[in-house]
Amino acid sequence: MPETFSQQALLAIQDQLRDHCFTNHTPKTAANLSWFKQQAETYGLQHGQGLHLLGQINPSPGCLSQNAKKISALIQAGQALSVDLVVFPELALMGYSPRDIIGRFPFLVDENLKWLKALAQQTQTTQALVGFVDKNTSGTGKLFYNSVALLGHGQILKIFHKTLLPNYHEFEDSRQFESAGSLAKTRPEPNTFALYNTTYGVIICEDMWETVSPMGQPLYHTGPLTAILAQQPDILINCSASPSRQGKLARRHALCHAVAEQARVPLIYVNQVGTIDEITCDGDSGIYLPDGRQLCSGASFSEDAVLTQLPSKPAKGLAAGEKSSDSSTVGPTVFNAFNSFNAFKQKTTITRFSNFMETVQDDLPRTYAVLTQGIRDYFQKTGFQKALLGLSGGLDSSVTAVLLVDALGADNVLGVMMPTAITPQENQDDASQLAENLGLVTTTCPIGSIIAGFHTATPAVIQSINQTAGNWQTAQAQNQSNADENIQAITRATVLRQLGNTYNALPIATSDKSEFYLGYATVNGDMSGALAPLGDVTKTRARALAHWMNANRDAKNAIPERCISKPPGADLKQDPETGKVVTAESELMPYPFADEIIWRTTCLKQSYTTLLEMQLDYENAHSLSRAQKQDWLDKFFKRLSSAAFKWFIAPPILIVDETGSLAKSAYHHPITSNQIAWQGHSETEIFETLNSGNTIKGN
Amino acid sequence: MPETFSQQALLAIQDQLRDHCFTNHTPKTAANLSWFKQQAETYGLQHGQGLHLLGQINPSPGCLSQNAKKISALIQAGQALSVDLVVFPELALMGYSPRDIIGRFPFLVDENLKWLKALAQQTQTTQALVGFVDKNTSGTGKLFYNSVALLGHGQILKIFHKTLLPNYHEFEDSRQFESAGSLAKTRPEPNTFALYNTTYGVIICEDMWETVSPMGQPLYHTGPLTAILAQQPDILINCSASPSRQGKLARRHALCHAVAEQARVPLIYVNQVGTIDEITCDGDSGIYLPDGRQLCSGASFSEDAVLTQLPSKPAKGLAAGEKSSDSSTVGPTVFNAFNSFNAFKQKTTITRFSNFMETVQDDLPRTYAVLTQGIRDYFQKTGFQKALLGLSGGLDSSVTAVLLVDALGADNVLGVMMPTAITPQENQDDASQLAENLGLVTTTCPIGSIIAGFHTATPAVIQSINQTAGNWQTAQAQNQSNADENIQAITRATVLRQLGNTYNALPIATSDKSEFYLGYATVNGDMSGALAPLGDVTKTRARALAHWMNANRDAKNAIPERCISKPPGADLKQDPETGKVVTAESELMPYPFADEIIWRTTCLKQSYTTLLEMQLDYENAHSLSRAQKQDWLDKFFKRLSSAAFKWFIAPPILIVDETGSLAKSAYHHPITSNQIAWQGHSETEIFETLNSGNTIKGN
Repeated sequence: MPETFSQQALLAIQDQLRDHCFTNHTPKTAANLSWFKQQAETYGLQHGQGLHLLGQINPSPGCLSQNAKKISALIQAGQALSVDLVVFPELALMGYSPRDIIGRFPFLVDENLKWLKALAQQTQTTQALVGFVDKNTSGTGKLFYNSVALLGHGQILKIFHKTLLPNYHEFEDSRQFESAGSLAKTRPEPNTFALYNTTYGVIICEDMWETVSPMGQPLYHTGPLTAILAQQPDILINCSASPSRQGKLARRHALCHAVAEQARVPLIYVNQVGTIDEITCDGDSGIYLPDGRQLCSGASFSEDAVLTQLPSKPAKGLAAGEKSSDSSTVGPTVFNAFNSFNAFKQKTTITRFSNFMETVQDDLPRTYAVLTQGIRDYFQKTGFQKALLGLSGGLDSSVTAVLLVDALGADNVLGVMMPTAITPQENQDDASQLAENLGLVTTTCPIGSIIAGFHTATPAVIQSINQTAGNWQTAQAQNQSNADENIQAITRATVLRQLGNTYNALPIATSDKSEFYLGYATVNGDMSGALAPLGDVTKTRARALAHWMNANRDAKNAIPERCISKPPGADLKQDPETGKVVTAESELMPYPFADEIIWRTTCLKQSYTTLLEMQLDYENAHSLSRAQKQDWLDKFFKRLSSAAFKWFIAPPILIVDETGSLAKSAYHHPITSNQIAWQGHSETEIFETLNSGNTIKGN
Repeated sequence: MPETFSQQALLAIQDQLRDHCFTNHTPKTAANLSWFKQQAETYGLQHGQGLHLLGQINPSPGCLSQNAKKISALIQAGQALSVDLVVFPELALMGYSPRDIIGRFPFLVDENLKWLKALAQQTQTTQALVGFVDKNTSGTGKLFYNSVALLGHGQILKIFHKTLLPNYHEFEDSRQFESAGSLAKTRPEPNTFALYNTTYGVIICEDMWETVSPMGQPLYHTGPLTAILAQQPDILINCSASPSRQGKLARRHALCHAVAEQARVPLIYVNQVGTIDEITCDGDSGIYLPDGRQLCSGASFSEDAVLTQLPSKPAKGLAAGEKSSDSSTVGPTVFNAFNSFNAFKQKTTITRFSNFMETVQDDLPRTYAVLTQGIRDYFQKTGFQKALLGLSGGLDSSVTAVLLVDALGADNVLGVMMPTAITPQENQDDASQLAENLGLVTTTCPIGSIIAGFHTATPAVIQSINQTAGNWQTAQAQNQSNADENIQAITRATVLRQLGNTYNALPIATSDKSEFYLGYATVNGDMSGALAPLGDVTKTRARALAHWMNANRDAKNAIPERCISKPPGADLKQDPETGKVVTAESELMPYPFADEIIWRTTCLKQSYTTLLEMQLDYENAHSLSRAQKQDWLDKFFKRLSSAAFKWFIAPPILIVDETGSLAKSAYHHPITSNQIAWQGHSETEIFETLNSGNTIKGN
């Protein structure tokens, strides 16, 4: 490679590449190619020099022409630059994951094969690895493979299938895909190919995670990675679509480094970026060298094209355990891309948290990135521009407003204040201040008269029902109170829907994870909307995120401190004695307590009994009687059980947390399990129950 | 077996068994046992006579004490009757399926082991096969097994694991369970055990379906059934939880008969009954004999205890293909149980439909059974008694009202009429007539004044928004019209929620499958509720079901014919020219057309182009221009794409159909796929798109 080829020039090429392929999600396929050819000529770029292009794209599921145009733009640019190989993520052409649409509408798979063929026709001397859905025509097994095609010389040269099909949390590969390893008789040749005197080995996402332990022990018995290494490739490639979760990137980095080191060859890791419904891939593609260095890295949470050089023939064949002293055999030129957001990527070791607040503080930049990415992609991929939400002056609506503004632009967000007679003036002032800070369009729609309509219409109805039949008598006062509170929340959501219809804008749900867990979100009310950005963000994390955004956004302190620090509440009812609005925590339990319990039950799998007997972090900071603790724990599990039906009808929840999400794509909880005895039973109780037939506490 | 042991006496014992174990879902564990002992003495029942008891129970997921008490009651009764073996369904103790709760809360698995141990302690000379969740302690793979335990002599004698883990449609076994076949090194002994000189082979549900082809070709490569038959058992047992779908029972019967015939031994098939959220198992347990007869059968859609006798040592060892001429070697005594509802079980061959209306007419009794079971179980398992719904005098609310009455009792159903100024008097009359026929409690709540509240409050708000910023201008008139229509539907749902809170009753959604498919259901409106009974029932099927119920219920013609035959519509807007209420079909397309397209796309996998080019059943009955057909098809797929977000937030939908359900437990459709080009593209279009960069039609 010529010495004159400066890193600055490469970065300029990359800027152009990015603009060429991704600007406004509209690839300019036919433009700019002559500029790239000129650059290649100026710097003497040629095939066989080890130039690789990583195409970190953001696809929409099933939207083949959109995805294919991005792929095509990168292939053509790569060709103009004399790149040897352009590598795309898992299922780049179909988008990961299409979930069940390919099974219900197999015509999509036929279409994806047509597009793949057309992409192949565009390749000449540059080759490309493109993820797509292949058909399983063997006569046995699921109808499709999760595959990667090698395109070159105008043709589909080779096809590789995924072996390890993850089926847990947000993954459901085995619903539609057959494993490459399942049909021993028809198994294709090893997943390797040769290009410019270099042998490449190809694996697909989970294939690298042989030792993954998302549930406490390694999941797999087969080893596609080991099998591929037995072929002694010069370079290893992993085409991935790896979702972002708390702690995941650090684990992935550590694994990629370990694989490169163990395999003694560079690992090219290309990851999808962007959100498909609830699931966000972070990108962060990279090339990992056997000596522990990372050669280049793609952007976090943004499409990227990473141009980099690898030696065409790195040293290999060292015996296991042997250390190479000659690190110069791998190309030292690092072509870093657009790492606008990668401060949190530094950690390469796995941190296990032993304290709840650490889990919150650790992860705020990534939380922010996932949420803004998720909002932006939901709107772009469904074709909407504008969002609206209710502004209460409280924490959740304030945090959501900032996220919407940063994802969509202030011009595209409408904040609606909907006070009633009991709404404190302070809250309206806070909401107004927030809106002013953010530059939002706002409006005020007092809802008192609408609510009055319900209260005028229904008492006579209730009275008439009460008179008719023994079975229909007004339930206890608490229920009536709930009904009145819910009317307010539903009326607000209805006004938002009405304005949403009027302006072709999507109303956004503001309920947070703590509220979902405790069933403290109103059906058809605050939990209603096109998307629930905070559905996997606890109150504690939302509060920390508010402070983080106030400190780290360009415009500081957009959220008035009073919005963050006031006791959360829905402003739905007054305490008859004090006249003050009732807070959520007085009805439930302190959120720091509840949020710690959420973390302990979901991440640490601790049970009711363990929680009752142990010393909680909360107890280190607050004095708490055992009776009070037990009461809160009872309430937590009781509310959780009867909240499950709300999770079922929740809008898409952007998955953020390590394992504790309630998002339907990641967690399936039967509603009819709501009589589970969370406290458990002793062996004596169980024996007595079965032999006496008496009913014991719980069910 | 003594000749004096008459079938009448056996049926009397069975009646008692059923009452003992299932009445009001509260097993009376300690009662009646002396009566059973007395019967055993009277008729000389003894162990080793081949008496078997099939415990077809209806469990709640994770509700261990409820489920264990039913199991215990049957074991104790079996013991009193000198039964050799009591057989329960797959995961009888935990309920099938617990979905992800066992992964998130592994304490439930610990608890289930405690209950299993206590159940074992109850067994003496009678043994029992009980489905439960076992732990995988091998250090590799998913943490749990889907297992069956053999209990006897007070102990857990043996444990069998499931091998084939279905993972398609409503099944997701491999999310939480490891396959028995996956760990060759640690694989336990063959799934056989000996009892009273008889060798039994045990398989679990899908293990029998080696050749199952739910997606078009056989799914599996391994053969646990073949493996078990190599052990030459005398009797084969399958513990199942097999959901009901159109055509499924016929396929299952055919398979069970085929397995018994091929294996040359009797097959004891015990199936779960009841609904867990969206999924309904039908029961229909039975014993299939190798000569093609069925020895006994459990009830359809009802808990049952089937007492039957099998010879302790049937003939076996016949070479494959050989026919036994000695059918007397299997016990001829058939102890039929409570088949109140099994007319549709007669078919044992698989029918493929070639005509849309045949699919509807074929399946009405089972549709009715699934829906009433689903409603009843949702209420029982969540602890609610009362339901309420809006009565419009239209088809969907009328059908739903009948189903609610039959599932819950008329006393527990409240019908609310909520007319506006444009509601035709005819519709109110029809609703009143229906309510009178059903003996419902009804009330009327005119909603005009509530809607007026919205219309009074929002115009000023809209005006103020329009004045503020360029980005926020009222969208086209259609949107404003949608907003006004939606307000009415949402207001109705809000009144229902308010009354639901007041009376501790669950509001029920009335939207049908056609409306869900076409996005013609209002968010927070008619599609809102605890349950959507008609969510997997098209308008065409709902209409046929109405006629079937009118003809077949004890009280004939409960639904006024006018409710069934009037053009469907939501009574939300008037045609400005005619003054008449706008019908759904004038806004969409004829439902018979849409419903046929739903069937053809989901069951026959036909694509847009195929549908456009073929002769539809609809076209055989109606004249239809190609332009009109294309317009409707375009509208169908466009509406389907943007309706997906409504499926995501739909309440539980009771799964009825063969494969076309939108229920979230069975079908996952990414919302962000809504720019799919359903019409497809030609190779020329694709090539030109990629090479010119021009945008083509669709995306």
